[in-house]
Amino acid sequence: MTNEHIVRSFAQELQRLSNLITQMGGVAEAQVGSAIKAVARRDVALAAQVMQADTRLDEYEREIDTETIRLLALRQPMAQDLREIVSALKIASDLERIGDYAANVAKRSLALAQVPVVRPTAGIPRMGRLVEEILKDVLDAFIERDVEKAIGAWRRDEELDDLYTSLFREVLTYMMEDPRNITPCTHLLFMAKNLERIGDHATNIAETIHFLVVGGPLIMDRPKGDDSSFAVVQPDQTAP
Amino acid sequence: MTNEHIVRSFAQELQRLSNLITQMGGVAEAQVGSAIKAVARRDVALAAQVMQADTRLDEYEREIDTETIRLLALRQPMAQDLREIVSALKIASDLERIGDYAANVAKRSLALAQVPVVRPTAGIPRMGRLVEEILKDVLDAFIERDVEKAIGAWRRDEELDDLYTSLFREVLTYMMEDPRNITPCTHLLFMAKNLERIGDHATNIAETIHFLVVGGPLIMDRPKGDDSSFAVVQPDQTAP
Repeated sequence: MTNEHIVRSFAQELQRLSNLITQMGGVAEAQVGSAIKAVARRDVALAAQVMQADTRLDEYEREIDTETIRLLALRQPMAQDLREIVSALKIASDLERIGDYAANVAKRSLALAQVPVVRPTAGIPRMGRLVEEILKDVLDAFIERDVEKAIGAWRRDEELDDLYTSLFREVLTYMMEDPRNITPCTHLLFMAKNLERIGDHATNIAETIHFLVVGGPLIMDRPKGDDSSFAVVQPDQTAP
Repeated sequence: MTNEHIVRSFAQELQRLSNLITQMGGVAEAQVGSAIKAVARRDVALAAQVMQADTRLDEYEREIDTETIRLLALRQPMAQDLREIVSALKIASDLERIGDYAANVAKRSLALAQVPVVRPTAGIPRMGRLVEEILKDVLDAFIERDVEKAIGAWRRDEELDDLYTSLFREVLTYMMEDPRNITPCTHLLFMAKNLERIGDHATNIAETIHFLVVGGPLIMDRPKGDDSSFAVVQPDQTAP
């Protein structure tokens, strides 16, 4: 009887931990969505809201950290249960970072709202839509323990890297056209980089889901990282 | 007898885990140092070496991950031992990210080596020296389990943020002076950002050391993040 009671209650505790991750994922997703909206609409109030709400993700991470350590100490879990707990620790850390990047996008949108609109700003919501899709798929994959969906999202990160690299080049040419574009375009570059990093953390979560469900690391061939780090764009591309 | 043997061998396993972190920390430190050298000396071969060696840190992280999960499952540790293992997991993740940022600095130094030197490049070794010091202190603090040293390093991250913010503004003005500076200066901005992020991960490690030794989270008042996200620099600062 007592034994059965403990077993059931450990399952409940694991479910609660999993629910915490799901909730935290929902908050992170909302933060990313709002940050992108704040850029597109030059909505300073929304940006401020995103920056303030970032502490909620820090609190979630602390709560999940404490809970995982408590469960590890009290329950001494093995196999699948142990993977559940270690995965929670890892995913909470990725979601916290995603929140930081969303808050930084929001913060930079304030600087952007002080100056006239620059054309490449439109690239941010375009990248943003893809980031939101990848993040949504990864979080669904976590809830459904769906490895295929996780791998699908993980593969799409490459599209995001491509989008980032092309936006990077576009923004550079705008900077060269008019020095007044330099400050807003620099913020755009960092915003785009933040979105690309959110994608990287989403792929980390996909890898953790693979570990959680399958039990081993995801080792596959996927071109990683963006090419913008190599980019050299000349001011006048037609010059000899 | 048997019991004593198990106790001693668990202590040895924990020591081995701790040594793995120390070794990984040494590799990360060397990677950061070499990346900064590659920028300062426009050393393309060294940059390529840093980029290649990044896989070593990925391997360390995988080994530490596997080892922590094995120890959690087999040893079912509690209290201090449990904190040792969870800390190893967290620190390995931070060191892996530090390696990624070092590799990205190296990668960008290749783009920079293709164009004439731009003046603000000198800011990178300046930031780099501080990053190296902070990282060294944090790794020493881990080896010595020295919370005071960890907190000291954690506080110095603020200097790094200040250095980053002033370099950010300096680089923007160079971009405005001459459009040929825009591409190299953009890489400088991202390099500086990478160094600033390495500092953030070093402070994460300092916080983990606090958790490891003291048993609770480090909650202190320290201004966090850089101010460059708010920066608006005008092309002609003397204009009406």
